Amino acid sequence: MAVPAAAEPEESTIPYPEDPPMLAVREAVSRALAEDVLPLGDVTAALLDPGRQARMAVVARSPGVVAGRLCALESFRQVDGDVVVDWRLPDGSAVAAGTVVASVSGPMASILTAERTALNFLCHLSGVATATRRLVDAVTEANPSTRVLDTRKTLPGLRALEKAAVRAGGGTNHRGSLSEGVLLKDNHLGGLAIAEAVAEAARRWPGRMIEVECDEPAQAEEAAAAGAAMVLLDNMTPEQVASTVALVRAAAGGVLVEVSGGITLGTAPAYAAAGADLLSVGALTHSAASLDLGLDLVP
Amino acid sequence: MAVPAAAEPEESTIPYPEDPPMLAVREAVSRALAEDVLPLGDVTAALLDPGRQARMAVVARSPGVVAGRLCALESFRQVDGDVVVDWRLPDGSAVAAGTVVASVSGPMASILTAERTALNFLCHLSGVATATRRLVDAVTEANPSTRVLDTRKTLPGLRALEKAAVRAGGGTNHRGSLSEGVLLKDNHLGGLAIAEAVAEAARRWPGRMIEVECDEPAQAEEAAAAGAAMVLLDNMTPEQVASTVALVRAAAGGVLVEVSGGITLGTAPAYAAAGADLLSVGALTHSAASLDLGLDLVP
Amino acid sequence: MAVPAAAEPEESTIPYPEDPPMLAVREAVSRALAEDVLPLGDVTAALLDPGRQARMAVVARSPGVVAGRLCALESFRQVDGDVVVDWRLPDGSAVAAGTVVASVSGPMASILTAERTALNFLCHLSGVATATRRLVDAVTEANPSTRVLDTRKTLPGLRALEKAAVRAGGGTNHRGSLSEGVLLKDNHLGGLAIAEAVAEAARRWPGRMIEVECDEPAQAEEAAAAGAAMVLLDNMTPEQVASTVALVRAAAGGVLVEVSGGITLGTAPAYAAAGADLLSVGALTHSAASLDLGLDLVP
Amino acid sequence: MAVPAAAEPEESTIPYPEDPPMLAVREAVSRALAEDVLPLGDVTAALLDPGRQARMAVVARSPGVVAGRLCALESFRQVDGDVVVDWRLPDGSAVAAGTVVASVSGPMASILTAERTALNFLCHLSGVATATRRLVDAVTEANPSTRVLDTRKTLPGLRALEKAAVRAGGGTNHRGSLSEGVLLKDNHLGGLAIAEAVAEAARRWPGRMIEVECDEPAQAEEAAAAGAAMVLLDNMTPEQVASTVALVRAAAGGVLVEVSGGITLGTAPAYAAAGADLLSVGALTHSAASLDLGLDLVP
Amino acid sequence: MAVPAAAEPEESTIPYPEDPPMLAVREAVSRALAEDVLPLGDVTAALLDPGRQARMAVVARSPGVVAGRLCALESFRQVDGDVVVDWRLPDGSAVAAGTVVASVSGPMASILTAERTALNFLCHLSGVATATRRLVDAVTEANPSTRVLDTRKTLPGLRALEKAAVRAGGGTNHRGSLSEGVLLKDNHLGGLAIAEAVAEAARRWPGRMIEVECDEPAQAEEAAAAGAAMVLLDNMTPEQVASTVALVRAAAGGVLVEVSGGITLGTAPAYAAAGADLLSVGALTHSAASLDLGLDLVP
Amino acid sequence: MAVPAAAEPEESTIPYPEDPPMLAVREAVSRALAEDVLPLGDVTAALLDPGRQARMAVVARSPGVVAGRLCALESFRQVDGDVVVDWRLPDGSAVAAGTVVASVSGPMASILTAERTALNFLCHLSGVATATRRLVDAVTEANPSTRVLDTRKTLPGLRALEKAAVRAGGGTNHRGSLSEGVLLKDNHLGGLAIAEAVAEAARRWPGRMIEVECDEPAQAEEAAAAGAAMVLLDNMTPEQVASTVALVRAAAGGVLVEVSGGITLGTAPAYAAAGADLLSVGALTHSAASLDLGLDLVP
Repeated sequence: MAVPAAAEPEESTIPYPEDPPMLAVREAVSRALAEDVLPLGDVTAALLDPGRQARMAVVARSPGVVAGRLCALESFRQVDGDVVVDWRLPDGSAVAAGTVVASVSGPMASILTAERTALNFLCHLSGVATATRRLVDAVTEANPSTRVLDTRKTLPGLRALEKAAVRAGGGTNHRGSLSEGVLLKDNHLGGLAIAEAVAEAARRWPGRMIEVECDEPAQAEEAAAAGAAMVLLDNMTPEQVASTVALVRAAAGGVLVEVSGGITLGTAPAYAAAGADLLSVGALTHSAASLDLGLDLVP
Repeated sequence: MAVPAAAEPEESTIPYPEDPPMLAVREAVSRALAEDVLPLGDVTAALLDPGRQARMAVVARSPGVVAGRLCALESFRQVDGDVVVDWRLPDGSAVAAGTVVASVSGPMASILTAERTALNFLCHLSGVATATRRLVDAVTEANPSTRVLDTRKTLPGLRALEKAAVRAGGGTNHRGSLSEGVLLKDNHLGGLAIAEAVAEAARRWPGRMIEVECDEPAQAEEAAAAGAAMVLLDNMTPEQVASTVALVRAAAGGVLVEVSGGITLGTAPAYAAAGADLLSVGALTHSAASLDLGLDLVP
Repeated sequence: MAVPAAAEPEESTIPYPEDPPMLAVREAVSRALAEDVLPLGDVTAALLDPGRQARMAVVARSPGVVAGRLCALESFRQVDGDVVVDWRLPDGSAVAAGTVVASVSGPMASILTAERTALNFLCHLSGVATATRRLVDAVTEANPSTRVLDTRKTLPGLRALEKAAVRAGGGTNHRGSLSEGVLLKDNHLGGLAIAEAVAEAARRWPGRMIEVECDEPAQAEEAAAAGAAMVLLDNMTPEQVASTVALVRAAAGGVLVEVSGGITLGTAPAYAAAGADLLSVGALTHSAASLDLGLDLVP
Repeated sequence: MAVPAAAEPEESTIPYPEDPPMLAVREAVSRALAEDVLPLGDVTAALLDPGRQARMAVVARSPGVVAGRLCALESFRQVDGDVVVDWRLPDGSAVAAGTVVASVSGPMASILTAERTALNFLCHLSGVATATRRLVDAVTEANPSTRVLDTRKTLPGLRALEKAAVRAGGGTNHRGSLSEGVLLKDNHLGGLAIAEAVAEAARRWPGRMIEVECDEPAQAEEAAAAGAAMVLLDNMTPEQVASTVALVRAAAGGVLVEVSGGITLGTAPAYAAAGADLLSVGALTHSAASLDLGLDLVP
Repeated sequence: MAVPAAAEPEESTIPYPEDPPMLAVREAVSRALAEDVLPLGDVTAALLDPGRQARMAVVARSPGVVAGRLCALESFRQVDGDVVVDWRLPDGSAVAAGTVVASVSGPMASILTAERTALNFLCHLSGVATATRRLVDAVTEANPSTRVLDTRKTLPGLRALEKAAVRAGGGTNHRGSLSEGVLLKDNHLGGLAIAEAVAEAARRWPGRMIEVECDEPAQAEEAAAAGAAMVLLDNMTPEQVASTVALVRAAAGGVLVEVSGGITLGTAPAYAAAGADLLSVGALTHSAASLDLGLDLVP
Repeated sequence: MAVPAAAEPEESTIPYPEDPPMLAVREAVSRALAEDVLPLGDVTAALLDPGRQARMAVVARSPGVVAGRLCALESFRQVDGDVVVDWRLPDGSAVAAGTVVASVSGPMASILTAERTALNFLCHLSGVATATRRLVDAVTEANPSTRVLDTRKTLPGLRALEKAAVRAGGGTNHRGSLSEGVLLKDNHLGGLAIAEAVAEAARRWPGRMIEVECDEPAQAEEAAAAGAAMVLLDNMTPEQVASTVALVRAAAGGVLVEVSGGITLGTAPAYAAAGADLLSVGALTHSAASLDLGLDLVP
């Protein structure tokens, strides 16, 4: 399919560097290429005249937010250093159907061999960024101080990349790993009182994020009073959230209230309006629909 | 949350082994655990009494089809060889909300450390199997001889696992990689006639799957006559598919007609009824929503 | 040994790109260097004056066909980015004793450190290409439409490279892996009839290569009639092959007849003349003698 | 093919453990399986009834010396822990055509999936051991104190395994890597006198093997006098070797004379009779023909 | 050296599980063994009668605190599954010269092959634990509420293991990685005011540890007032620390004061007495002297 | 801290290339960065304006000998190819407090992200080189022909790098691995006579370093007479060493006497004066204190 007259890309609205560590990019791309080209290589591209050159364009087919630039660049680079990519939009840029995201030139066989790997990263990570941006926009309108959080419900092997895509979408990262902070749930507490558990966590991991998952408003109040930095309200209604926020604010200053469970585009504004500081949504990463981008021949 | 009285699992309807290669399982799990537990381990579970034992259950919270058993088992095994898992349902089993999929016993700290990694695999792969099963059921009802195919639009690093989950859902695998078969698209053909390209592909890769992507019925006819094993009709209406199927059948026996582009639960029955042999759907893997499963304490 | 006046290389006769995937090259070279230089590096080259520069030439010492260019280049590159290699002959080029294949310039210590690794790849892969070319030439003379196939009997860890070397020698690749096609042998069939097994394979893996190993002509006929794309005749005489080919051709059009077992330079022409489409030979990869190439100082 | 009445294996004649490091075994097997089973697994074995059990035997089809036991065991183990292997012959055992080397029981699909990987290791490494044993026998008859050495001309990625197979064949290992000893060749010396180079090597790498490659008898004498532990005579006739040995013995006690270049089964006895301590042969590893072993169903 | 009558080990004083993630253990051991046994294995142990069995003991030769149990166990396990280790003391146990830490039985060649790798882990990690315990004891005596922190100045590739050893020694872990928390230094601030930087960090990484490095007491006061969870006082005297602690306490509750720079066994008590909450010491990991442990034959 | 007016670096005194293999460098750096930047990257540097550029200097804060240049360069390169490093001093150069070792320019966020990883390598390896140089200087003054040896007591995963740092410090490498030479200890000998064991080792591993650990002078004499290349005297006094050296010299020419056990800066001169050829010291690698180097902003 030929490239339509390029729609003017909107300007990026993300002021900070949102790229994942290059190390994560290099390893993920190498793994993905191994899946797709070993052992014989691209048996279809092998039929092409090796001297044939092409100019192609990465084009959005639906509106959304792009992410995954480094992965796409690295995919082409690992297949063939002679492929030249001119990437036009930083991660986090909004695109319309028809927006040209990048142009790709070089040996056609190499471009076609790398195409699917590059697009698999780009479409998935843009899907994550797009879902995030939609939720961020909905939430911000309801309450400009409420933020959207991801979770550890990422697809195996893609955490660093998906968490960067969430940032590109305007979202905020919760813990990157089990190593990064304490989150006390029912099962951790056993019979222990919340205050005791928080104190012990603070003793063992001074200075770290300590958060307590709470089913009841009183638990949130106790956690806040005990010095937790965050409380996680799971599966409460917006009304319950509102009253719990009030309790927490009264108990201690600076404690963040995170809400999770059943947060969707539809329900998020109500939770934001209820005063939640943070809304965390596993679906941003575990159920993000792919954003449709393709590679078109430039005539 | 306590485990409800276990709903009786339906019997598996998949007669063949659908497991991914153990090699792929071991490496994916090791990678996923590295993401989640390094460098300090689970700083929350470290607060538990190391002698504390628990019995927990993997429970479905929504109806669907489970897949990912080997990955979940391997996640617990790699964290702690003392965790014992009793897995009750083969991949491909249908579950209702409340179905107990497995029980897990051993040191509680270890179970909680492995929980998210095990569930991330299980929920994603069950999501793929569930989406596949739904489409298979819809298609089969419309035309029992039409099958559902996956694509190479898999999430990077998860191809072997997702393709196994598609099989568990009753779907069929298209090419596992660029190395496994020839699929000639517009960009490959350049100015070459389809018949020439098919002949050249057959000469270079004798015995392999050779497929030609066709925009026009006449191309499909030409490809079939030239000896392609499959033709791929992209973005046609069911009516166009029906008339193209007729042309292909007339041109050569045994040629499979694959349809892709815009296949959804809603449109698939019409395409199946139009006589397509295969409906391929990238969304089975690139946009599958997670199936909700959780780990509950057994009181 | 000094480089003789360079014999004029014959022109490459391979019209298509035969390179293995770069990913396979990079990993194989890195593994091979690890074997040879860790932990102390090249303790002999460490005795050289680090400023000493050299110009050396990769020279064939026996006639044959070269393959392994990318591996040799990568070996020098990974040891020292300052080594410059000018490679003169594409893989698949015929060489005489004395043909200069490449010239190598840079720090002498680095060149000597990489020498053995580069040559180990080059001599082995050229050995594979040479053995293939010899067989291809013998077969083509007897029957221009018969092709030479490799097998999965490759040396562990070298499959992608050896299969590319077979292509460079003018041979054709059989399955790259167990994932790429169905090959039904006695042990798979158990008591199942060939026709049933082929039908089941076609149902489960639509569009893929399906081949049946046959000890008896009647089996080949049955397999062809059942829709197999290929039949494999194992350990038959040329006469048996000829009569089986006739049966297969009568049973179905387009079915390829592969012959294996006891194919050597001596026997191959007779099998080709008997009408076999494909002759597969494990020895191309599992028993190929090294082609003698060396690195000589250019005075 | 059914297993014939098992020929009685000859007793192993190798008194020392000849196994390669398990680390090398595990990694090589994992790499080889990745080549052969990813991404979809064994699509043929997937057609088998998963409950079907089998008992099979690894049987030699030609006489030779077996090696590669650990690799074969590990291949079955990595594919399926339920496969049980009863290995009967230590590496280095002589086998006749028909000797049963091992029996293998378990799920038939798993055995067939691992078969080719296990045999690829076993046939290649047994080929190396067999070639070594033949040369050792020929050499020992001519001169019981002459030993057969391998070289660094090993196939990339297989050094530890091939060097162990050489030991299993009764051969002796030269340097395992460039890190393990000094071998001064023409190109290292530049204009430096042999005595100076040996002295410098001894100063820098005290206690290590220091060897000098010599084209002329006088060089060997100089190297021996300078304190080299070994001299390498390259491409000399047996007569030249004999006279050089005499010079070396006169120059210094305990210096080993290694001969390389053109050592074959035919020429080796003459070189041994000429008094060489060590005959090194790259072909043991770079050009060893596979030993034919297969996996047969036990009825 | 024979094992002396075993001194009675003191009881472990560490109440919580301090083990590093098994994933880190497996990979570090596999890497360390690769360094030490490839390609030829242990050429000295190869001289032993393979049937020879031994019983040996891991014995402390100096007083200290042991750590590294999992690494030592894994070293023996990876070399030979037949080696049986009976480990007697959990990580964090104090030992005297002569204390038997573990007994090791099995094939002597395997035990000797694994010995150095196991001891290299054990001696280094016990060295880290010992240095930590000494500092913890000195600090606790001066001020029971002051804790000893490690840093990111760990030896490359050993972070997870060294941080676990610090815990075993009674120390506390600072950030595991750059991903785990914000630590604002001069170079990060540029011209930005501390309060602005802290606010921005809190906005971007809600709930995370935010710490500010301060050269001046007034900076610490500003950081505390701005909401930092921790302030890092670098290279201050104990007196300056004391007055800064007072300022910080006045500015905000619950802010932790960390002191670094020049903390030794000699100076630490004064800093603790000055009211520091945390003393961080890079030397615990980057300069820990090895604890002397050896492997002795049990007669 | 700003960079002081650069002290003039002393000239390197190491005439030979001392760099570790690049392969070891690349893998160690990639591992170290993975520890420090995954999964979220440097959350503090992410707060910087991505366009901000900086010029910084690697500066020694204490006198010593630098090593680790390749690792530091690779650390910056892997984080960001736009960082430019001008390295001024080869490994092995002596530095004073204030010596500028390198200047680093580029995006400030990238420099700060790589800083700790680069310094962790540099400070540790320079610590090894510094400890080695100090001992070499002390030994050389006492006996110019005595050399300082390292051991296999290296930190796990760092052997190639630490052994290169020892060379940079002017030390000499003992065995790189168990594969590189024979070292017979008590436990290897069992009841075997030394002469028998040496003969057997020489038979099995011709040309290799063979060394015998000796507790008694008579053992050293026996080993020397039997043809060992080196004897290792463990835990003897200088006087015992002197008399054993005399015995060894009388028994055989060219045998090297290595002394180990209790060699410190204080005791080494006496052992050197006693005539030892080699003094081996595990503490050079297992207990080397870090050399203090830092990264300062260039105003």
